[in-house]
Amino acid sequence: MLTTTNPRTGHSTDSGITVTTPEDVARLTEKATTAFLALGELGRNWRAGLLDALADGLEAERETLVATADQETGLGLARLGGELTRSIFQFRLFAEALREGGYLEATIDHATTTVLGASPDVRRLLIPIGPVAVFGSSNFPFAFSVAGGDTASALAAGCPVVLKAHGSHPLTSLRSWEALDAAATGFGAPEGTLGIVFGTKAGATLVADPRIKAVGFTGSLSGGQALMDIVAEREEPIPFYGELSSLNPLIITSDAADARTAEIADGLFASFTASAGQLCTKPGVAFIPRSAAGERLVADLVTRVDAAAAQPLLNSRIFDSFGEIEQRLITEGHALVAATGVDSGDGFAIAPRLLTIDAASITPEATEEAFGPLLVVAWYDDVASLSAGLRQVPNSLTATIHSEPGEENLVAELAREVSPHVGRLVFNGYPTGVRVSWAQHHGGPWPATNSQHTSVGVSAVRRFLRPFVWQGAPESSLPTELRDNYTGVPRRVDGVLALAATPAGT
Amino acid sequence: MLTTTNPRTGHSTDSGITVTTPEDVARLTEKATTAFLALGELGRNWRAGLLDALADGLEAERETLVATADQETGLGLARLGGELTRSIFQFRLFAEALREGGYLEATIDHATTTVLGASPDVRRLLIPIGPVAVFGSSNFPFAFSVAGGDTASALAAGCPVVLKAHGSHPLTSLRSWEALDAAATGFGAPEGTLGIVFGTKAGATLVADPRIKAVGFTGSLSGGQALMDIVAEREEPIPFYGELSSLNPLIITSDAADARTAEIADGLFASFTASAGQLCTKPGVAFIPRSAAGERLVADLVTRVDAAAAQPLLNSRIFDSFGEIEQRLITEGHALVAATGVDSGDGFAIAPRLLTIDAASITPEATEEAFGPLLVVAWYDDVASLSAGLRQVPNSLTATIHSEPGEENLVAELAREVSPHVGRLVFNGYPTGVRVSWAQHHGGPWPATNSQHTSVGVSAVRRFLRPFVWQGAPESSLPTELRDNYTGVPRRVDGVLALAATPAGT
Repeated sequence: MLTTTNPRTGHSTDSGITVTTPEDVARLTEKATTAFLALGELGRNWRAGLLDALADGLEAERETLVATADQETGLGLARLGGELTRSIFQFRLFAEALREGGYLEATIDHATTTVLGASPDVRRLLIPIGPVAVFGSSNFPFAFSVAGGDTASALAAGCPVVLKAHGSHPLTSLRSWEALDAAATGFGAPEGTLGIVFGTKAGATLVADPRIKAVGFTGSLSGGQALMDIVAEREEPIPFYGELSSLNPLIITSDAADARTAEIADGLFASFTASAGQLCTKPGVAFIPRSAAGERLVADLVTRVDAAAAQPLLNSRIFDSFGEIEQRLITEGHALVAATGVDSGDGFAIAPRLLTIDAASITPEATEEAFGPLLVVAWYDDVASLSAGLRQVPNSLTATIHSEPGEENLVAELAREVSPHVGRLVFNGYPTGVRVSWAQHHGGPWPATNSQHTSVGVSAVRRFLRPFVWQGAPESSLPTELRDNYTGVPRRVDGVLALAATPAGT
Repeated sequence: MLTTTNPRTGHSTDSGITVTTPEDVARLTEKATTAFLALGELGRNWRAGLLDALADGLEAERETLVATADQETGLGLARLGGELTRSIFQFRLFAEALREGGYLEATIDHATTTVLGASPDVRRLLIPIGPVAVFGSSNFPFAFSVAGGDTASALAAGCPVVLKAHGSHPLTSLRSWEALDAAATGFGAPEGTLGIVFGTKAGATLVADPRIKAVGFTGSLSGGQALMDIVAEREEPIPFYGELSSLNPLIITSDAADARTAEIADGLFASFTASAGQLCTKPGVAFIPRSAAGERLVADLVTRVDAAAAQPLLNSRIFDSFGEIEQRLITEGHALVAATGVDSGDGFAIAPRLLTIDAASITPEATEEAFGPLLVVAWYDDVASLSAGLRQVPNSLTATIHSEPGEENLVAELAREVSPHVGRLVFNGYPTGVRVSWAQHHGGPWPATNSQHTSVGVSAVRRFLRPFVWQGAPESSLPTELRDNYTGVPRRVDGVLALAATPAGT
């Protein structure tokens, strides 16, 4: 029997949920395989309707879902309500993308004769890859868990999803799945469209199952590595999309420190302490000039941190790990403690911490990601020491530059320096609060993620699609979107891009 | 010193080329890293010009290149001339794609307020991944080697290329590289844009080099697996794009066998014997109905094969392996020899072979890919035995269905059955002669390839790109294609796709 734990008290109770047996995992993947074929017959506009129905189903259970998640995560009703809204928004955005159809990359090359001779008619579309395993994260019980972006994007692609509930919030996972499953059933979705498994071993069994054709994962580098090792043992290798670890360096130029001292202190403090610092885009290191303004900025941060109350971390593993990493940053990374908030001793609660170090002497030991409300300030004296420090920062999801007008050359130089190491570059803002939209990219070079794909935003659907070509196919064998007279999606015909001529969803 | 071997005689001579030392590999990847930054400054339209210059450079050396390749591969002047034309065509097609700019997937979401609150300005573009290692194949000394599609698509993406010359045609590789390098230098390309290494160990060193950010490979499953093992040992995992192995089942319905007996025998014979059967899309197994027409069709094939002359295979490894696999198909796969052409005993020459087997009793031992002019005919009695046989065929690049009007239901059923196992479905044609175009897809589920990407066609460029987002960036920090007033490429702005308003290349 799995337990559920309230991180505010550390008290565990029986969740009433049992771990999934290997036989039940196999039954779920078998059902998902059958559902995959059935989904293929229903098409893209039907799936858009399904995603909208799932959004409605989540909205209908809002009160229960948020209350359950609050008990299991301690993240608070406001943050969790906002997160559920985000999850619902994601389902609706993917429904919109399905109706629009550009994600299909429909491409038609009519038969012709080129310098290479007679060339057959060739038509390309992205098609779903097959049943997908989705691993819920600890830190986003909705938006990166059962009701999260991986689920929404896999379903959008046309792939049934078998979820692995995160052990940190089993009841939230179950309630979310029940809400989605009821909505899917009500909409007429094939049985097996959405399954869920509980327990670490069941997750491993799921990834090894030959019927699973891709894995979506948001979590720790070590957890991701363990699953990648299972993937490597499979007879058929499959894509593993892991969003793993990120330090997210933030750079403040001396003009920015001077011009916006209090504003940046305020924004930076909010960014690294939001959700108790348990965000994959939390800025973990801030490069601040050792100038009068820089010192005022850090003094402001110290004041805020000193007064800050403790917030519960998600679970005992994260709590223990946070303490260990904090110690390593001090003993092995030689960071100095600049401020510590008001620890309460309740459950897994921890107060914010501010450490400092010299940018010029940063070592890899000082750039370990502490998953919690901790920021390392790296003092820099000049661009050379800033660069030296940046070189020790592992590849990340994001980097951020705060600057002022007139510093364009410096900004260009810094952007050139950090861009190879990140997937998103933020100007005069904060990396947390990842916008869900068409253009978003949430990914970065290893170890931030392990692929050239995103797990947030519309193009996340690409992870669960594969290209397919019909050559010389009669009209009756072609999917609707590739027939000559169809005009409902953007298409590239004989090399020329054409917009859809009929409204989306027709 | 590497040798070069004429497969027509089996006679080896000194090539004058030495194997590349580990130090020289490191020097080349270091130069490629420097070139990567320089290429980034030059931009997409400059790269289009570079690709056109490379095409011109190959054309200028046509005579030498084709003659050299003929000596080293025995593929013949006509086939090699056509292949070089194809290589040149590929460079020009990617130049066209660069000027058009749709491959960038330029996406802009302006700052706005949604149900999730204030949302920052987010702009996405695909950017180059870094220096790429490209492994030349044995069977396409131009189109999948030094001057091949991997090289063209990586350069199109903006990635310098370090080539690994195939040991089967070292002089062709060197001459191709010299032609490309001279053209690149003449066009003003940064030093290090194109490098080349020789020797198996140098290839392994190249893949392990941390400066290499992706690998393109066309070759055997075992060769690909060896390189994937090296990738797995790297500290930073990188994408490995392997085009590996493919049996390419071809199905002939009874109506098709009846209506087009001689036509199909002619086309099928040409398809499996072209280039001595050494094409990754060669049909390796043909499902033929055990009907009067089917028997006439096979009798026709037997006649053709009996009379067929031997053609040289590419090298001694392929020659030896072909003989071993032929034997295994007979002894372990229980295939019967229906016809053998006229073997000559010269060099690595081998004549076409036709084997037969019952579709209902096919085992995995009967579906091993024989890289050479060998076709297994699988007799089927009904759809059930056809399906049973198809289930034993490994995933492939392609499947082919020959049918006649009136068989639409059967075709739909067969298409449903084979589609999950291939990347391209050919109707009433042949899988060989892969068209190079915008819509083409050359890939398939494992073990055909190991990714959801193509190695032929314009979208092959996507393999060497990664998404990148600028958030809240001032105009001066944005790439040209993402600035508000730019109209030179198709873009998605606030969810709405817009065509380019100015001609390509401006």
